[in-house]
Amino acid sequence: MQIHSAIPDLRAALNNRRGIVFVPTMGNLHAGHIALMAQARARGDTVVASIFVNRLQFGLGEDFDKYPRTFAEDCEKLSAAGVDLLFAPAENDLYPETQQYYVDPPEIQSQLEGAFRPGHFRGVATVVLKLFNIVRPEVALFGKKDYQQLMVLRNMTRQLALPIEIVGGETVRADDGLALSSRNGYLTPAERAEAPRLHRVLRGISDAVRNGRRDFAKLESEAVAELGRNGWKTDYVAVRQQVDLRVPQPGNTVLVVLAASRLGKPRLLDNIEIQAVQHER
Amino acid sequence: MQIHSAIPDLRAALNNRRGIVFVPTMGNLHAGHIALMAQARARGDTVVASIFVNRLQFGLGEDFDKYPRTFAEDCEKLSAAGVDLLFAPAENDLYPETQQYYVDPPEIQSQLEGAFRPGHFRGVATVVLKLFNIVRPEVALFGKKDYQQLMVLRNMTRQLALPIEIVGGETVRADDGLALSSRNGYLTPAERAEAPRLHRVLRGISDAVRNGRRDFAKLESEAVAELGRNGWKTDYVAVRQQVDLRVPQPGNTVLVVLAASRLGKPRLLDNIEIQAVQHER
Repeated sequence: MQIHSAIPDLRAALNNRRGIVFVPTMGNLHAGHIALMAQARARGDTVVASIFVNRLQFGLGEDFDKYPRTFAEDCEKLSAAGVDLLFAPAENDLYPETQQYYVDPPEIQSQLEGAFRPGHFRGVATVVLKLFNIVRPEVALFGKKDYQQLMVLRNMTRQLALPIEIVGGETVRADDGLALSSRNGYLTPAERAEAPRLHRVLRGISDAVRNGRRDFAKLESEAVAELGRNGWKTDYVAVRQQVDLRVPQPGNTVLVVLAASRLGKPRLLDNIEIQAVQHER
Repeated sequence: MQIHSAIPDLRAALNNRRGIVFVPTMGNLHAGHIALMAQARARGDTVVASIFVNRLQFGLGEDFDKYPRTFAEDCEKLSAAGVDLLFAPAENDLYPETQQYYVDPPEIQSQLEGAFRPGHFRGVATVVLKLFNIVRPEVALFGKKDYQQLMVLRNMTRQLALPIEIVGGETVRADDGLALSSRNGYLTPAERAEAPRLHRVLRGISDAVRNGRRDFAKLESEAVAELGRNGWKTDYVAVRQQVDLRVPQPGNTVLVVLAASRLGKPRLLDNIEIQAVQHER
């Protein structure tokens, strides 16, 4: 596996390569990332991964400085997964000057995650656009665990006429259902034992909606209450339309339930896609 | 010359082409545009022009609907100038849905032209980014007559890590000094006779600054007054730094004087780059 940190070096290495499949990451790789690499390996001739902890998408008081960085282990995992090239820029490679030109996502960026992380999706969209302009892939993969991010990037790519196919990768879970995440490492043993409740609660909503319930607000508030009784501080539990993450229109059955909640210090995310049944009225 | 309006057709035609040089326009081509095509012809193997009147960069009350459209004549001129491919999308090709993802230029977008045309540079930056993503040129040319636009696009390209060289083309003028512009066609004969004053006034400031004057505010207000005495309504006359169009720092000698002024209905733009002398203090 080649490793490049300078943009001109990566460009030279990719020159004349076809079928580039790209998986951007912030490192601290777990089995969810590696599943994306395997999916990428099956999709194209040249698999490029990137590791870059993007300061632009972290807000004030967020964990940019202590975000886990495990570069040597990450390289071993990527190499074993069949990645051809790793782009691992330093901050000065990607931001040699203060970033002043941003991609500004629409109003959805201020809902759900965006309501709790102002500017987050602007930072994500801008760095991914820059990475796309450097790597120029035909396909790019992002995990479904960050579901709103996947939606923002898919819409950005289409609306900016980038010739890139955006593919979502399924969330990888521990045996007890907890979605794998770099932030799980912050959990104490007691919190780790409690953590799978988030997925169980979402599964409960998913089952109810698939069985025909449409009283989403009630399902959401019951879930927030159950989490609260068990020590969680919940930012949101929300049933939304998959296509645009807006509140479901009557009759829309292609849904997703998303949640963000804090267990102690770590803030955990999860979601489940729901194909509800179309009921006669 | 091939002509394509659908994005997939253009992409297919450009597939495997190297050395693409791109000149985006809004049509109604004059000798200034044709000089850009000649410059493009000398720079690369494949010259691509585009014609698209971009609604996003026109404000309320601006002349989008009556902007002159002369497609047949434009095609003849482009073909004669050696253009290989013309991309002429319909509005629905470039904006098949409401545009929601924009490139947001920094604060300079609200100065000079931006102060009088809110959202203009956001619209310009967004459409040019889309055109770049479709055409994927190695070089793109823009006239210096829209000087602030050239600066915004150059900075956007660098900051978003696009592998594209941005080249400015010299302003082409009538014998009496009037900068060629699609909007000159709106001038009455009497206004057309008066119009070269804008260039003469800028030339006067340029000469004064090259000879060592640094009292820019006085030069600017004298110019506005002279234009006013002759029936012009001036939005701005401003001496700025070339690099970022900010007010010149002491000792900065790489300058440009820019103006926008209305003569009757048409709003005319012009500018002159100034290499001032470095004086001892």
